[in-house]
Amino acid sequence: MDRTQQLVQHFLSHRNVTVELIGKIEEENYNYKPTPTSMSTQELATHILTSFYQFASLAKKGEAKPLETNETNLAKLADIYTEATQKLLEDMHDEDFDRVVEAMGAQMPAGQLLQIAMDHEINHKGNLFVYVRELGHTDLPMFVKRG
Amino acid sequence: MDRTQQLVQHFLSHRNVTVELIGKIEEENYNYKPTPTSMSTQELATHILTSFYQFASLAKKGEAKPLETNETNLAKLADIYTEATQKLLEDMHDEDFDRVVEAMGAQMPAGQLLQIAMDHEINHKGNLFVYVRELGHTDLPMFVKRG
Repeated sequence: MDRTQQLVQHFLSHRNVTVELIGKIEEENYNYKPTPTSMSTQELATHILTSFYQFASLAKKGEAKPLETNETNLAKLADIYTEATQKLLEDMHDEDFDRVVEAMGAQMPAGQLLQIAMDHEINHKGNLFVYVRELGHTDLPMFVKRG
Repeated sequence: MDRTQQLVQHFLSHRNVTVELIGKIEEENYNYKPTPTSMSTQELATHILTSFYQFASLAKKGEAKPLETNETNLAKLADIYTEATQKLLEDMHDEDFDRVVEAMGAQMPAGQLLQIAMDHEINHKGNLFVYVRELGHTDLPMFVKRG
């Protein structure tokens, strides 16, 4: 398995869980937040989806272009972003991983940026697990799904 | 930077944040849980610390030996486990990463097991961020600390 395939597999092994959790958020709970200073479920889900897309765009194309969509249903938004992000990642070639990009005020290889993108997804998916349990769901997936 | 140094740096960039969050849990909140089916703060913190140590022990030594300690203060426990885990990781040599170990019912190279260990830490640290905010803390660190 080459580096691109490993990356896509790692991405999907977590993203498929993110998508499953987002699918449990009913529209009447889009404004739910655990505390007044927390992100709402809608803000958190959107932050996860848009962040990885923009990290991947920056890694592949050198600029963090946002995806244009008017979709407001979170489950549909998750599908749109996941498909678009997967495409960007599948298009990463060996030379792309070493190209230096500017992110968060620092210069780093695109491969390192994508590691941060993975960690960012896993961190906020970890937040989302607590939110979804607080919304009454107790039948939750493992934090990662292989294969 | 070689593979071992990268691993140790990646571990500490997240573990230092875990330790900071655990340091915010007062003893009277050790039994706090967001919902009846959640782990308590004490269970969650202990699970994070013991899991990485045992993953690292399995990766380095081929067996997931628990660390023996009677410490019950979570902040002190975090220091004990972090120091012991860092030592195991610093002792990983190039040949150790490729050695196949049995974990979670599958055979995998130790390097892959340590990637799962990192993801496991970040996932549960993501849970812990929500817990600590619910305990009234709003001045929280970034999810990762570099350098």
